[in-house]
Amino acid sequence: MKVLVINCGSSSLKYQLINMDNESVLAKGLVERIGIEGSILTQKVEGRDKYIIQQPMKDHKDAIKLVLNALVDKVNGVINDMSEISAVGHRVVHGGEKYASSVLIDDVVMKSLEECVKLAPLHNPPNIIGINACKELMPSTPMVAVFDTAFHQTMPEEAYMYALPYDYYTDYGIRKYGFHGTSHKYVASKAAEAMGKDIKDLNIITCHLGNGSSVTAIKGGVSIDTSMGFTPLEGLAMGTRSGNIDPAIVSFLVKELNVSVEEVSDILNKKSGVLGISGVSSDFRDIEDAAAEGNKRAQLALDLFNYKVKQYVGAYAATLGGVDCIVFTAGLGENSPETREAICHGLEFLGAKLDTAKNKVRGKLTQINTDDSKVCIFTIPTDEEMMIAKDTMEIVSHK
Amino acid sequence: MKVLVINCGSSSLKYQLINMDNESVLAKGLVERIGIEGSILTQKVEGRDKYIIQQPMKDHKDAIKLVLNALVDKVNGVINDMSEISAVGHRVVHGGEKYASSVLIDDVVMKSLEECVKLAPLHNPPNIIGINACKELMPSTPMVAVFDTAFHQTMPEEAYMYALPYDYYTDYGIRKYGFHGTSHKYVASKAAEAMGKDIKDLNIITCHLGNGSSVTAIKGGVSIDTSMGFTPLEGLAMGTRSGNIDPAIVSFLVKELNVSVEEVSDILNKKSGVLGISGVSSDFRDIEDAAAEGNKRAQLALDLFNYKVKQYVGAYAATLGGVDCIVFTAGLGENSPETREAICHGLEFLGAKLDTAKNKVRGKLTQINTDDSKVCIFTIPTDEEMMIAKDTMEIVSHK
Repeated sequence: MKVLVINCGSSSLKYQLINMDNESVLAKGLVERIGIEGSILTQKVEGRDKYIIQQPMKDHKDAIKLVLNALVDKVNGVINDMSEISAVGHRVVHGGEKYASSVLIDDVVMKSLEECVKLAPLHNPPNIIGINACKELMPSTPMVAVFDTAFHQTMPEEAYMYALPYDYYTDYGIRKYGFHGTSHKYVASKAAEAMGKDIKDLNIITCHLGNGSSVTAIKGGVSIDTSMGFTPLEGLAMGTRSGNIDPAIVSFLVKELNVSVEEVSDILNKKSGVLGISGVSSDFRDIEDAAAEGNKRAQLALDLFNYKVKQYVGAYAATLGGVDCIVFTAGLGENSPETREAICHGLEFLGAKLDTAKNKVRGKLTQINTDDSKVCIFTIPTDEEMMIAKDTMEIVSHK
Repeated sequence: MKVLVINCGSSSLKYQLINMDNESVLAKGLVERIGIEGSILTQKVEGRDKYIIQQPMKDHKDAIKLVLNALVDKVNGVINDMSEISAVGHRVVHGGEKYASSVLIDDVVMKSLEECVKLAPLHNPPNIIGINACKELMPSTPMVAVFDTAFHQTMPEEAYMYALPYDYYTDYGIRKYGFHGTSHKYVASKAAEAMGKDIKDLNIITCHLGNGSSVTAIKGGVSIDTSMGFTPLEGLAMGTRSGNIDPAIVSFLVKELNVSVEEVSDILNKKSGVLGISGVSSDFRDIEDAAAEGNKRAQLALDLFNYKVKQYVGAYAATLGGVDCIVFTAGLGENSPETREAICHGLEFLGAKLDTAKNKVRGKLTQINTDDSKVCIFTIPTDEEMMIAKDTMEIVSHK
């Protein structure tokens, strides 16, 4: 079975065509500048040159039409006919409280997605546009929605509720939802597999550290707490996001800067995080370079980031009642031995001992704890697309 | 030496006169409704009936005049003459970054306190009024300011900085300050004393749990992180305060409720916390009663509160690199065995084992861990007034 995985942003679209018979990626691509001058599609197929199409794409339907053309292209394609695509899996950011797992898309689901727009005004609309465009072009192909929030729907009440007037939850849906669920679920299952243990018997802490970052506490395979919240702003300091701050700072800034609350919101989402502290960049590689050259604010940005991750590891160890396994994934988690070392330093009291030699690794599944460490530590490349394809296959096979 | 300790609120004033030669409280009292109809002073002296004065007090100067009269009163007083008061110690909420310890009050200090009003607009003004009133009435008596923030000035940069644009720190003083410092410092030193160890060799986590609550990580006797932040809103859920929430909720509420950011700030400070969740009360005793009668939201409020404290204990264990001692203090921490038990449950991985029998204690210094617990657990009554008096004596003795 071949599954097409689609991840739509507001003006971009990522896709992968995966052959689920052997879990191989047949083609993957990126469409950028949809609806903007200079639209471009780049498709990569293992062992071949990049296939690039530059032509105007006025909307996501145009973009998806071109993706399908690229996949069936006589010279650059990987399939003969669109009918070879058995199903499409769509990444959807917000599933609210309705979806604790992936779901076959029908009219009822589309209505629910519309209802979640208020909760994710930046993310859900392009997801919906992408699904509608696909439905028009492939009306008889089953489609599945895979939610970033679904994995975290198992959190207990004391973890997902805020200490706010209770009716804000019932009337406005204000609660912790959590994000990056597909990634946390994927690396946790990979870790259990690598340990040769049943995930049901494990306490795992997964650290998804990249431009957006979150930490999740996973007990017996289910998420019981996660650092992102009502929106992806909560939790860790990130590339441009503040993460947790004293909520009183919002009104203080509105007053002191004499700006609207929306402007403060924009600052917290786009001008804060390690960019705000360092003044250098939102890209951790740039910040690491600057710190290495003696830039103190860049060093502070790194120190603060690592410090907060370490605190979440401690907090979630307490939530889990001890930890068997810590996993690092995503851009930084997979590729920065320095970040992993800084976070693990001082966690020996948990029984977690990093092997600094084994830790000198980038981008591949590696166990990086010492032989006498009670806690297994891994770096595991995340693969959200494969996870989406698996969920999609499972659901269309059982419908 | 006799020291008068003064703690001024906006319309109230608490005081104690302490004989530092034997650390005994000669008298303590409360003045309420200052500047409001029905002003009343209540003074308690061990072994005597309450002494109550009801008469109009138009301002804090009137109130302090009455306090001094009550202390020297022929029948109800405890000293013969005001000159017996060697010094006055004033509790001051916010010392900003200037004061890492208590300080003898002079004109320079008064100017600094004025500068901190912006950081603590609700708390510092009554503190300043109280000091000025005392200075007028006792012009030759030395006065000391003891700051709620001072103990936390030892936090490292990565703990006190927020991931915000850096100039918000330099231009507006936006950083974590932390509060309840006098209490955290006091119970930590008491715990070290009870353990018979030098505090310099200990990692201590102090949980000040009451209507306002905070947790502090203390390494070698100094605060290295604390849960309250720029204001006392950050951190744990409290009686009426939300504690940490996704900062994006502030702008969401401004929009959805169609109210000003000040109104949202008011909701977060006064209508949230365990009051907001339970809908019952901000008083934990009322909530415990309601929960016992089967009120689910009351039970959720308690569960959520305990859950967050436990996470801070885990986070600070990670910050400290392991913990030797956990201390519970303040209203709940001293008087609720249930709260302490719920928080300690599941912390065995830290080496912390609560003895449930020993834990059945209220209001007195007690070691409540099992004999085989690696971590010492204490409940210790806090005594901010004694701490203020000690600092005051020390400073006036060395001036």
